[in-house]
Amino acid sequence: MARVVLGMLGLGTVGTGVVELLARHRHLTLKKVAVKSLDKDRSAMPNCPLTTDVDEIINDAEIEVLVEVMGGENPTVGYLERAIKKRKHIVTANKEVLAKHGPRLFALAKEHGVAIFFEASVAGGVPLLSTIHKGLEANEIESIMGILNGTTNFILSNMETGKSYADALKEAQDLGFAEDDPTADVDGFDVAYKLSVLSALGFGYFVRPDTIYKEGIRNITEEDMALAKEFGYRIKLLGTAAKGGSNGNQGFDVRVHPTLVPVTHPLASVSGANNGILVRGHAVGQLTLIGPGAGKLPTASAVVGDLMNLAGALKLPDFASYFQPTIEASPASAAPPDHWKCPFYLRLVVKDTPGVIGKLGTIFGAHNISIATIIQRGAEGREATVVILTHDVLGKDMNSALAELKKCDFLSSLGNAIRIFRSA
Amino acid sequence: MARVVLGMLGLGTVGTGVVELLARHRHLTLKKVAVKSLDKDRSAMPNCPLTTDVDEIINDAEIEVLVEVMGGENPTVGYLERAIKKRKHIVTANKEVLAKHGPRLFALAKEHGVAIFFEASVAGGVPLLSTIHKGLEANEIESIMGILNGTTNFILSNMETGKSYADALKEAQDLGFAEDDPTADVDGFDVAYKLSVLSALGFGYFVRPDTIYKEGIRNITEEDMALAKEFGYRIKLLGTAAKGGSNGNQGFDVRVHPTLVPVTHPLASVSGANNGILVRGHAVGQLTLIGPGAGKLPTASAVVGDLMNLAGALKLPDFASYFQPTIEASPASAAPPDHWKCPFYLRLVVKDTPGVIGKLGTIFGAHNISIATIIQRGAEGREATVVILTHDVLGKDMNSALAELKKCDFLSSLGNAIRIFRSA
Repeated sequence: MARVVLGMLGLGTVGTGVVELLARHRHLTLKKVAVKSLDKDRSAMPNCPLTTDVDEIINDAEIEVLVEVMGGENPTVGYLERAIKKRKHIVTANKEVLAKHGPRLFALAKEHGVAIFFEASVAGGVPLLSTIHKGLEANEIESIMGILNGTTNFILSNMETGKSYADALKEAQDLGFAEDDPTADVDGFDVAYKLSVLSALGFGYFVRPDTIYKEGIRNITEEDMALAKEFGYRIKLLGTAAKGGSNGNQGFDVRVHPTLVPVTHPLASVSGANNGILVRGHAVGQLTLIGPGAGKLPTASAVVGDLMNLAGALKLPDFASYFQPTIEASPASAAPPDHWKCPFYLRLVVKDTPGVIGKLGTIFGAHNISIATIIQRGAEGREATVVILTHDVLGKDMNSALAELKKCDFLSSLGNAIRIFRSA
Repeated sequence: MARVVLGMLGLGTVGTGVVELLARHRHLTLKKVAVKSLDKDRSAMPNCPLTTDVDEIINDAEIEVLVEVMGGENPTVGYLERAIKKRKHIVTANKEVLAKHGPRLFALAKEHGVAIFFEASVAGGVPLLSTIHKGLEANEIESIMGILNGTTNFILSNMETGKSYADALKEAQDLGFAEDDPTADVDGFDVAYKLSVLSALGFGYFVRPDTIYKEGIRNITEEDMALAKEFGYRIKLLGTAAKGGSNGNQGFDVRVHPTLVPVTHPLASVSGANNGILVRGHAVGQLTLIGPGAGKLPTASAVVGDLMNLAGALKLPDFASYFQPTIEASPASAAPPDHWKCPFYLRLVVKDTPGVIGKLGTIFGAHNISIATIIQRGAEGREATVVILTHDVLGKDMNSALAELKKCDFLSSLGNAIRIFRSA
């Protein structure tokens, strides 16, 4: 096979895995790796030349492909732009840069005749992007949904043993599964970036991440976990990207929120740091993919897979036209949540006065909300917990019902309102 | 997109689906379809020119790609050979032809500079082949196993309601899920062909289907189904292709047999006509894919996906070298079952005489078989059923133990011996 010379930005967990996997592919020659500091102990990789000067890679004409595994938005996006202008192909694991700057980067790559490969940016080792782009080529993709963040899935799985959110987060941080600042994971930003990338591939539009509805897992309590289990559900942070928004042609339902998933559903069996994704195509129906969503070798396997596919294709003239997905130059916006329909789980803390259930029923009825199950628990004459499972509800109807509830004297606090799984 | 002219052999369920899906891809022009008889009512497809003369397609120089969805070994393989010699690319759903003649057909295709695409030959709509070939490019594939035959999975799922094998088969035949002669499905031939194709893609060798161990589902009884359920298992027909045979470099463990799968395992949740496959790669670890393994549009989606990928690549010079997997020109043989290790479920019908359990324990112990669970059921003084779950056992040890058992007076009949799931 023809030799292809690579440069790499970043040598963290994934970068180290890439170096390890490249050892068995001698035609892929890693010429130089840019790192933040040369002081770190890298004795495990004696043959990997390092530099702190990114320009040494970007300006090296012999380097044909830039592997970007440094992450983050800045300064990374600037490095990628300059590398593309120097006609280097890009293999990246960076969902944030793609979600925020994808349309521009892809246009720039087209202009300069290079390709951007990005399998590792979503779902780690699960070859989800190639499945959507090539495996389901004959399908109009209707929806993509699932568990796309291993950190929150680990925390939620851990909370099922009765731990609080704070304790489960702490444990994930101690084990290296969660960052010191866990915001990107636990507040849904990471999943939103991935949904933007998946929308680009599945629907042809990057969806602006700031328009994506994001509800994280910080408010999930031990009580919610226990109640979900009692009713036959597990709580998972699900990302959904589906066609059919209420926002015109470019409207898509793209959203991240905790979801009660029935224990019998394949997604409920996705535990720990794994990812699990349902893809629906007009001809194939529904596919389920489950596998490692993160980790050194699984993610590196996606990066090196891209490198091998790219290297094999490089000699084909005009190959980018075959390998690059068609993505619109302007991003789309996600539709607002008002028109999604799904059942809800509600946990309310109420003063135990006579007639509360009746009042709740009246309020929900007035907002087109039909109740499937309602139970009340608690000592008489004190605060009680009311748990309600509804039938399908429009987001706007639930919002107006909750707004009215909050004004009621009998409500001590709105414990939680969490969506229940519904096929996209 | 450049126009690509197609010819097709066969217009059954899958062929009809192909015609339906092609309607939205005008650059893929279906010029002619060869069928057995022109007398059938095809009014649903008025624009599809038919012929009973295959030569009209094979000798038509304008036709660049032959879509083969007629199935069977003969005369199909001859048609494919002649089409390849006329420099036509092949898109086929035919696992039997590939398993039996794959090495020769791929060598012939290479010689004539054409490609063979075959996503539809295994797992219907699940893009399993592209996942192995391109999605997991950076991985050494270690094993591929799973539920690869929808007909038997439908029958086994149906038997879980208490139906006999004969009744469940009859129902599958009435519903069109099983053939009048169900041999290819229920005796494991269909799965063996698919494992041969998967071995070619995953390991580089077609495995001769006549060397693959095949144990079908005919002997599974209602009693086995009920006992499996009682012990926390579902019975599935699993196909396995794994590296590490005892047969030298070209030895692979390739086999088809019923298997007790723990209900908590993702494969246990694969019901009805779905397929579910576990793929293990050295870097990624384990991936799970679940989806429709048959059916008009799912299978057609795999055929048309191949056509679109092929059509997009046709203009790239020497594209076959990129798209064609590297497959050895000689097939490999599967290793004999002697050296597989797995736990077993045994159902024995014994005369209820004193000391039977002790005698069983002695025989099994003498053959290196360690018993995990043993229960005896039945009215005193009459025939009783003994159910045994073992720890890991070598195939040859189980065979010699069963041979010795059969000579024992206390054994009325060997009810069944079924393997229990073990990760490949």
